[in-house]
Order: sequence, then C-alpha cells, then structure tokens
Amino acid sequence: MKAEIIAVGSELLLGQITNTNAKFISSKLAEIGIDVYYQTVVGDNPARLDEVLTIARQRADVLIFTGGLGPTKDDMTKETIVKHIGTTLVSDDEALGYIQNYFERSGRVMTDNNKKQALVFKGAHVLPNRKGMAPGMAVEKDGVQYILLPGPPHEMEPMFTDAAIPYLLGATGNKEVITSRVLKFYGIGEADLEYRIQAILDKQTNPTVAPLATADAVTLRLTAKAQSTDEALALIAPIEEEIRAIVGEFIYGIDDDTLSSKAAELLIQNGWTISAAESLTAGLFTAELAGEPGIGASLEGGVIVYNEKVKISQLGVDSELLDEFGIVSEECAAALATSVQRKFATDIGVGLTGAAGPSPHDGEPVGTVWIGIAYKDEEPKTYKLFLSGSRNANRLRSARFALYYLIQLLTEIEGQN
Amino acid sequence: MKAEIIAVGSELLLGQITNTNAKFISSKLAEIGIDVYYQTVVGDNPARLDEVLTIARQRADVLIFTGGLGPTKDDMTKETIVKHIGTTLVSDDEALGYIQNYFERSGRVMTDNNKKQALVFKGAHVLPNRKGMAPGMAVEKDGVQYILLPGPPHEMEPMFTDAAIPYLLGATGNKEVITSRVLKFYGIGEADLEYRIQAILDKQTNPTVAPLATADAVTLRLTAKAQSTDEALALIAPIEEEIRAIVGEFIYGIDDDTLSSKAAELLIQNGWTISAAESLTAGLFTAELAGEPGIGASLEGGVIVYNEKVKISQLGVDSELLDEFGIVSEECAAALATSVQRKFATDIGVGLTGAAGPSPHDGEPVGTVWIGIAYKDEEPKTYKLFLSGSRNANRLRSARFALYYLIQLLTEIEGQN
Repeated sequence: MKAEIIAVGSELLLGQITNTNAKFISSKLAEIGIDVYYQTVVGDNPARLDEVLTIARQRADVLIFTGGLGPTKDDMTKETIVKHIGTTLVSDDEALGYIQNYFERSGRVMTDNNKKQALVFKGAHVLPNRKGMAPGMAVEKDGVQYILLPGPPHEMEPMFTDAAIPYLLGATGNKEVITSRVLKFYGIGEADLEYRIQAILDKQTNPTVAPLATADAVTLRLTAKAQSTDEALALIAPIEEEIRAIVGEFIYGIDDDTLSSKAAELLIQNGWTISAAESLTAGLFTAELAGEPGIGASLEGGVIVYNEKVKISQLGVDSELLDEFGIVSEECAAALATSVQRKFATDIGVGLTGAAGPSPHDGEPVGTVWIGIAYKDEEPKTYKLFLSGSRNANRLRSARFALYYLIQLLTEIEGQN
Repeated sequence: MKAEIIAVGSELLLGQITNTNAKFISSKLAEIGIDVYYQTVVGDNPARLDEVLTIARQRADVLIFTGGLGPTKDDMTKETIVKHIGTTLVSDDEALGYIQNYFERSGRVMTDNNKKQALVFKGAHVLPNRKGMAPGMAVEKDGVQYILLPGPPHEMEPMFTDAAIPYLLGATGNKEVITSRVLKFYGIGEADLEYRIQAILDKQTNPTVAPLATADAVTLRLTAKAQSTDEALALIAPIEEEIRAIVGEFIYGIDDDTLSSKAAELLIQNGWTISAAESLTAGLFTAELAGEPGIGASLEGGVIVYNEKVKISQLGVDSELLDEFGIVSEECAAALATSVQRKFATDIGVGLTGAAGPSPHDGEPVGTVWIGIAYKDEEPKTYKLFLSGSRNANRLRSARFALYYLIQLLTEIEGQN
C-alpha cells in the first residue's frame, strides 16, 4: 500500500508551526510496512484541497489527513472530502457522545457549532478522540482509504496509535504482529556504532535493525514480524544478544528509558541517596534527575559552585589542591564528589568540573570536562570527556555523560550485591 | 507570487526526521510577502520528483527545493530538475572554490565525487554555502523561479536568509525594505494578550502586528514595509508605544532577547552578584542563567535543597518557620532567598519552593509555587504562581517566572539608581 499524508492548515504554510504530524505518522506507517510516497501541506482553502485530493487519489491508496476537523468556519476538511468522494455527512451518536463528554469533563458549555464536529461520513469507522473534541474517521471509497485525524499532535498521536493503526492493519488484511524493541545508547556516535555492527545490519531482514541518531544519542530499533508478539520477541532476542556482545557497554536502557529515568530507577530501587556538586553544568545534572517522579526518596540536593572561591568556601575543597592541579582536573572532580557526598551525608556524590567554552578555563582547552562519582567510602571514580560542541551543548552533554557513568557504576555495584 | 516548497528525501517519508526546513522557509517568505500555497515532500526517486515538478510548476511560480544536493548517488535533485526544465549542468568555478575551501578548512581529502557538487544550472545564480559543501542555486525558466537549497538546516538557513531572500526580492522587483521588531512577553497568555490589544490588531496593516505563541511564552512581531529601514522603524515606533502603554508590564525584551539573556545583561551591566536556593526546580533556574556567556562575573552559585531537612541543614532555614508556615509558603521562599544570599555573600538571592506535582506537597495543591527575591538588605520580594501543567512543565515555568520577576525587579532598581 502507498500512502500520502495531507496536512490541512494555513498556519503551516505561514511557517507558524512545524508539521510534526507528518513525521509521527510516517514513522508509525513504516513500522507496519506501509510506504509513504508523499507528504503534502495545503491551506484552509476548499478549492486547493479539492485539487490536492484529485492528485493524491491517483498516486496513493491510503490518504491520511490531519487538521481542519474543528468547529470554526476555517475547518473544512470533512466538507471538502465529502463532496469530492460523493458521500454524505451524518451525525454519529458515538461521536456526539465524545463531544458531550468532553464538555462535561472540562466544565465548559457546549454550543451548537460544536455539534458540527459529530458529523462523520456515512458508514465511516469513527476514531475516538480521548484528548479533545473532534473525532477522527476512516472510510474506504473506490479502493482508496480516507483517514481523517485532528491537527493538534496531543489529540492526533494517541488516536493514530490506538485506533487508526488497528484499522489499517485490518484493512490491509495483515494478520501479522509487528513488535519493536529499542536499544538506547550513550557515549557512542552513529557512524561508529554502524561500523562496529555492520555485519549484523547487513544480514538482517526479520527482525530489521534500524539505527537512529538524535541530537546527542543513538538508538537501535529491532522490529520483527510474526504470528504473535511472543514469536516476534523470540526473533529479536538472539540479535539483541549479538549486538550486546559487541557494543553492550554503551547500552544504558531499552524502549522508553531515558538516562535520568534509568538512573532514578537504580537509585530508588536500591534505596541509595545522592547529591551533586556542579560547576560548568550549574544545576543541569540535578535538574534532569529531579524530573523523575519519586526521586525525592533518593535526591537530597546539591551545591552549584560556579566560581572558584565558592568551591572552597561552600564545599571546603582544599585550596592547595586547586592551586596544584587546577579547577578542571581529575583531583578537583573527585574532591567535589566526596565533599558534597559528605556535606549532604548521601551514599553517592557526583562532581562536575570543566571548560564549557567559549574560552579555555584555568588553562584547560574548551571541551575538557572531568566527572567524579563517589560511592560510600570507596575511592571515587573519575571520567574525562573531550567535547567539541557549543558552550551549552557541552554543558548538556556533560550532565548526560554524568548520568551515563552513574548508571554504569550503579549497575556494576548492584550486580556485586 | 505563489510559492511551493518541495523537500526531497526518503528519510522524511520514513519519519526519521521532521521537515523543519518548510517551516523556516515559509516564515521567511511570509515576511517578504510571498505566499506559500503548498509544501510537498517526495523521496529520493527521480520519477516521482519529476511528477511533482510537473504538478508544481502549474500551480506555483516560485519552487523552492531542499535536499538532494550532496555527492552520493541518492542525491538527484539537480539531475532531475535539469532534465525537466531542459537546461544543462556546468561546473561553476565559484562553487568549486567553496567546496575546495570547505575541504581545506576541515582538513579532509577531497574525492572526485565531491566535484559533482560544483555542477550548477547553466546561467544560474550561485548561492554560497558558508556552513557546508553543496552550493545552492537559483534560476528562472519560463516564468518559474527554481531555487535549490541543501537539506541540513544549519546549511540551508543562513543560505536562505543571506542569499535566497535578496535574490527573490530582486526577482520580484520589490524595492521596499521590510523590517521587523519582535516584542517578547512573559506571564500573559496569547488569548489574553490579543483581547487586550484587539483594537490595535484590528486596525493595523503597516506595520502588521502578528502574535505568536510558543510553548510557554508569547511574542508580537511588528513588521513594516517602507523605502528604508529608518522609515520602517519610524512606522513601528508609535504602534510599539501604544502596545507598551497597555501590556508593557509583560514585555521583558525585544528581538533575540531571552529571559536568561536579559537577566544576565542586567546583572553583568550593573555588576550585581547572584546566588539561588532551588527546591522544586532543582537547578533549572541557575542552569538557565549559567547558559549565558560572561555570567561568571555575576553568578556565584547556589544550593539545591530538594528535601526538607537539607533546607534546614544546608541553608540554616529556621525549622520553626517551616513548621509554622510550611515548605510551600511565602515565608519559606523569602527565607531561602535571604539565606542563600547571605551564605554566598551576593547582592541578590533567589529562592524557589513549590508543589510541582504529581501529588500535593506539604499540604499545598499541585501547581502552587512561591518565588522569593532578596536584593541587598531590602525586604525580600515574593511572588506566588498557580500552574496547571505537568510536573516538569511546572518546574520549567517556575524557573522562567523567577527570571521574569528578576528582570522586572532589576529593571526597577536600575531605574531608581
């Protein structure tokens, strides 16, 4: 099946918003093996949408529309398509129920123009909207599937995943289950990762192994097709094992894990407390960790020691040590970690110091960062980074690397216990 | 003039990346009065790109292409268009110079396939690439403008602004200058802002006044057309004055100002030092401020007091005060501000405490936040927020509101001096 994604909305053409819906839908369709051939954006203009429809149904057999389902007169997606394909709009009780329910939940008064949103194509499959008012719909006409979805991503995304995908799987007669498992990496670049596992990438068809690089990390998505989820997972398991044997040290989690969620999980599950002393990151490390629900059980707090003299006055870091080794040094990172650990009486103390840029710091070149992690009364571990980004990219990467090394260390300690 | 933006790249159709280029180009074209009627995405497929070209040149007279200018065999934008419009490719000395220069700068060895990138349409206007290898180009054929740009946003954006926009202004014969001034707001919603200045929004045509809401803030863009920049600014000035008279209290800066850059500017220019004690934000406030170059002159550091007992042990906040008023209280915010100010011996101390969610904190409902700001030996100012977002949205908004109130207070003090 060939799909075209058609976004309707003048705000997209004015450059006021980005068409993230097209990316979301495309990635989900790729997972179920439907090829997207085109993405189109057109304004809130019935004549131009009609022309787009004429072109699209000649070159694709699944047309997915986003936007223009709301109650105002700008919203004309349904009305234009209904004329184009020669069907009628009928009020759908289920859809009206969603809308009434939405007004009840939000405590607002429902006006007449909102009833317009309950109109769906005759015979359409209604796609419930759990996050807003306008329901989606799906209908087949002359061999072409028309799927209409609301524009706001927080309404469209769950509707697409929960209702449109199952509908499309049914329509394609696809009885296979598609299951993915995502391996999350840190501390390795996309090119390096691909080079190391090239043999696995080359030979795989089921499961497929797809690398994806984001701003500062890489993931591998392993996707298998089979008659059941268990069978699909059984296809994935040996390939994951092969990958772990080669680059397992860089894998910090799976699926929805993030560096901070994984670190928080390890801390909370083991009942460990933590504090941090941050220089160049100035709170980024602690703030990321504090974003995780339940972290209050482990996170005591920290000290931001931005200027040299406060490293001495607030943490009692030895001024002679700073004179001898410098602020951007292994010794300073270790001293920050043990000082804050002692000061906050926590199991773990983390210290971060470095030259974020734009100019060298205390004689060390831009991008040099030292991380120290103290665990109970063991000798603190230290880690050195050489970063090459902008000032704020270097600061963020330093905080993320500290979370990554923390996960590595805590996983090791957990394994020993 | 009617424009269509055509992105070429299978990675877009697979949902691996978002088409941010279309948004960028659309917003820039809107500024110079060129209407975008369509945005199209097609894969790295010559036959389908050719069909897209046939459709596009019938419905638009400016076609802007992004992507597919690189050295690999996937890159076929130029080759497809050259056949379609019936011209030839010639090696351009200027373009070859850019590529050779790029290799020299990056210290890499230039291979033969890179010379392909120096091929441009015969008679084309070459658009220099300051950030990468592949030059862009612009050519007019049978009344249609073809503008080809590289795909990576960091290459495309400066090329579009610096070279494509002046080319288009020349092509449109537009001798007018277009100048914008952006007013940055915080602490007011888009709907409320529009309601308060509705009379101004309704009557304006030159300058136009365009509101734009981002995730947690609103801006107003005032855009004037005139024969010179000075004339355009003279048209903007009285309207800006009218707006400031109504909603000036919410304006914290202009153009590229951010909350943190504006706060940093006020601190550095006045030689004031600052420290912060953060509870729910856990470092977000200090980390945002630390993102500004030169802030080392003002920012001493801070304390993250995530758990109650560290508020007492690390900052010496009176335990009786916490018992009497609670952790989420005006009194606690003021005590955090004055304690950290004293501890770090700074001119200014900022305190943040609140219930970020998901559960109430110390009896206060989710979303209740108190901010305290102490300036020298004056009575600390306090501010209360009621936020309604998710846990992490509330944390980020609390840090931003603290920057906003800091800007307000410092501006007032600066005015008194």
